[in-house]
Amino acid sequence: MVSQEYKDMLGAKSVIRELSEWGGRRAREIGAQNVFDFSLGNPSVPVPQQLTDKMIELLQTRDTMELHGYSQSQGIVAVREKFAGYLNKTFGMDYTAEHIFMTTGAAGAVAHAARAVTQPGDEVITFAPYFPEYNHYINQTGAVLKVVPADTKQFQINFDEFERLLNPKTMAVLINTPNNPSGTVYSTETIRRLAAVLEEKQREYGHDIFIISDEPYRDIIFEGVDSPYVSKFYDNTLSCYSFAKSLSIPGERLGYVAANPKCTDSGLISAMCAQISRGIGHNCPPSLIQIAVAEVLGLTSDLSVYETNMNIIYDTLVDLGFEVVKPGGTFYIFPKALEEDAESFCKKAMKYDLVLVPADTFGCPGYFRMAYCIETEKVERAMEALRRFVRMEYGK
Amino acid sequence: MVSQEYKDMLGAKSVIRELSEWGGRRAREIGAQNVFDFSLGNPSVPVPQQLTDKMIELLQTRDTMELHGYSQSQGIVAVREKFAGYLNKTFGMDYTAEHIFMTTGAAGAVAHAARAVTQPGDEVITFAPYFPEYNHYINQTGAVLKVVPADTKQFQINFDEFERLLNPKTMAVLINTPNNPSGTVYSTETIRRLAAVLEEKQREYGHDIFIISDEPYRDIIFEGVDSPYVSKFYDNTLSCYSFAKSLSIPGERLGYVAANPKCTDSGLISAMCAQISRGIGHNCPPSLIQIAVAEVLGLTSDLSVYETNMNIIYDTLVDLGFEVVKPGGTFYIFPKALEEDAESFCKKAMKYDLVLVPADTFGCPGYFRMAYCIETEKVERAMEALRRFVRMEYGK
Repeated sequence: MVSQEYKDMLGAKSVIRELSEWGGRRAREIGAQNVFDFSLGNPSVPVPQQLTDKMIELLQTRDTMELHGYSQSQGIVAVREKFAGYLNKTFGMDYTAEHIFMTTGAAGAVAHAARAVTQPGDEVITFAPYFPEYNHYINQTGAVLKVVPADTKQFQINFDEFERLLNPKTMAVLINTPNNPSGTVYSTETIRRLAAVLEEKQREYGHDIFIISDEPYRDIIFEGVDSPYVSKFYDNTLSCYSFAKSLSIPGERLGYVAANPKCTDSGLISAMCAQISRGIGHNCPPSLIQIAVAEVLGLTSDLSVYETNMNIIYDTLVDLGFEVVKPGGTFYIFPKALEEDAESFCKKAMKYDLVLVPADTFGCPGYFRMAYCIETEKVERAMEALRRFVRMEYGK
Repeated sequence: MVSQEYKDMLGAKSVIRELSEWGGRRAREIGAQNVFDFSLGNPSVPVPQQLTDKMIELLQTRDTMELHGYSQSQGIVAVREKFAGYLNKTFGMDYTAEHIFMTTGAAGAVAHAARAVTQPGDEVITFAPYFPEYNHYINQTGAVLKVVPADTKQFQINFDEFERLLNPKTMAVLINTPNNPSGTVYSTETIRRLAAVLEEKQREYGHDIFIISDEPYRDIIFEGVDSPYVSKFYDNTLSCYSFAKSLSIPGERLGYVAANPKCTDSGLISAMCAQISRGIGHNCPPSLIQIAVAEVLGLTSDLSVYETNMNIIYDTLVDLGFEVVKPGGTFYIFPKALEEDAESFCKKAMKYDLVLVPADTFGCPGYFRMAYCIETEKVERAMEALRRFVRMEYGK
């Protein structure tokens, strides 16, 4: 019989998707160049030519069995060795292939990591503002997602509220730095303090508490920003990565979980993820893209446009009197709306062909998100629309 | 805390994998050409050159955003339209894009289809011999897999036992034709009778019972064999397909669920699968391979070698006095072992460098599986080893 649970989910459409659909309809009316769509976090810079060339070369020269054959369910061993080596060199870690589990994107990484370190009924804590899909990744494991209210001053961690939520049922803490939607990067000080609190609670509760560190924006860091590698500071860390943003290949769904070699059962986590994937029919990401990306590790798309766009938007927002924390990375910025109801604010913006996303579903009402992965020329024109919008609607 | 459930799964290693690992070690000792490894169902014929050429062409000519950008979570719409059109032309169906859900392989297809039409506690019936991974696909949804004992005469369906297992908790029936491991194809008569039984039980129980039809071997059918398209015979059918075997691309993990346009909630099933995939972090298969395969629909690798191999093995087995049903498709054959304990039989075969798989985990003790997706020249040499083995160990 058709499952009522999943049928019911169809009713609750994503606000972001609805806004983006409106943007699409409006684009057909007045031309895409005239709609300032800041709704979707879809990379806007091309895939590096070296990656395209590498895929062509592999297709032209490699045996098809080798290129398209079954890989181990943890991912191709040679690929995992290369990823481990790259992480060791970059962050001074000691990963081997057995610590790496290849996934279909960061979504797959977080979902598998969460299942590996929780049981139904456990609690996982995350911090607002947070990516709303976390509700699905966590709640469908049978665990329960608890949300710490935002530190709206700096979008670091609200430690007082965090310590109030911690309890013996807390088995994992899910963080996302650089952060979607705030664009903030957790400082070394924040990560150190988080690690210290968790070390203490592990002793107090007598069980492990894992950090699941969602890091798809790890390579989009702006000039001079302190960007610690979380796993360096806390042994029980599972780092979740995706190449979607750094190589502009979100459709290829390539990512991994890297279990800190010092974490509890570090040698088993990847193998356990493979067992989890058996049941959900995931079975490791496609072979061609695994092999190709492993050959160009360290390469990224030209990500500098995101910082250029951020500076233009940040300066305009400050000039217009918005309350806004300067992003340290990603392609998001997260200002406070000019009225209490961010949905109403974003609806008014649509009259000026600006597509902004109210942050209620990110657990931070009163704020809105702008994803500035669009051409700089368009960002500049959008700023004129933003100025008009603020002047006309709020008299500023 | 690390999940005990998935940790425990690590202990129970797959027999097939163990055998295949033994085969690998033995190959390093005496050379791969001297080990007759019939353990793994890994396609042995190359990917069609047209598919490789198409991928190269796409990489050389298409915009990278288009080729590697996010696709809808149900799969790329244009791709789903093409798949629907191809199925309509081939099988006389009326699919549209909304009935198709793109998956990472047949595993993903079966796992998503099962979640869409069951709730925890429901029962799903399958028929021995069956692919052991079904236990994971079904049990991890919270439903329970029930197994009908094999019809060892023809490896069609044991209807008496099937009707004994049917009860009001039965919400789905999982079939696999052409079948792994038996190689048998369910006849039109079998499918008609199955449909009739289920129609009657739907009326009696007052709820839907879905057929989840796992069809990754649909394109490997031997000469003159009747091979009905299941969904033509029963409206509540979800067809699960993979391109792993037909295009020799198992590592690329591309498949789909096609919901019969006349099934209950037919317009919602694909969208529901997308909701399911949100929670397990699957999010549709990679974009490049979706686009490339959609451009070469109907193309297959040269699959004729499998029938050549089957005939050589079948004739030898019959000649040696084995009890064996002639396969109608796939690259498997499923003879009865020459002693009651098939594990002991297969262990003895290892002395002759023959890697055969005992069928206990397929729910059919006393039988063994041979996967003959290897070179014909090797099959011929393997038959000499088989003759030696049977003569030396069983005096035949």
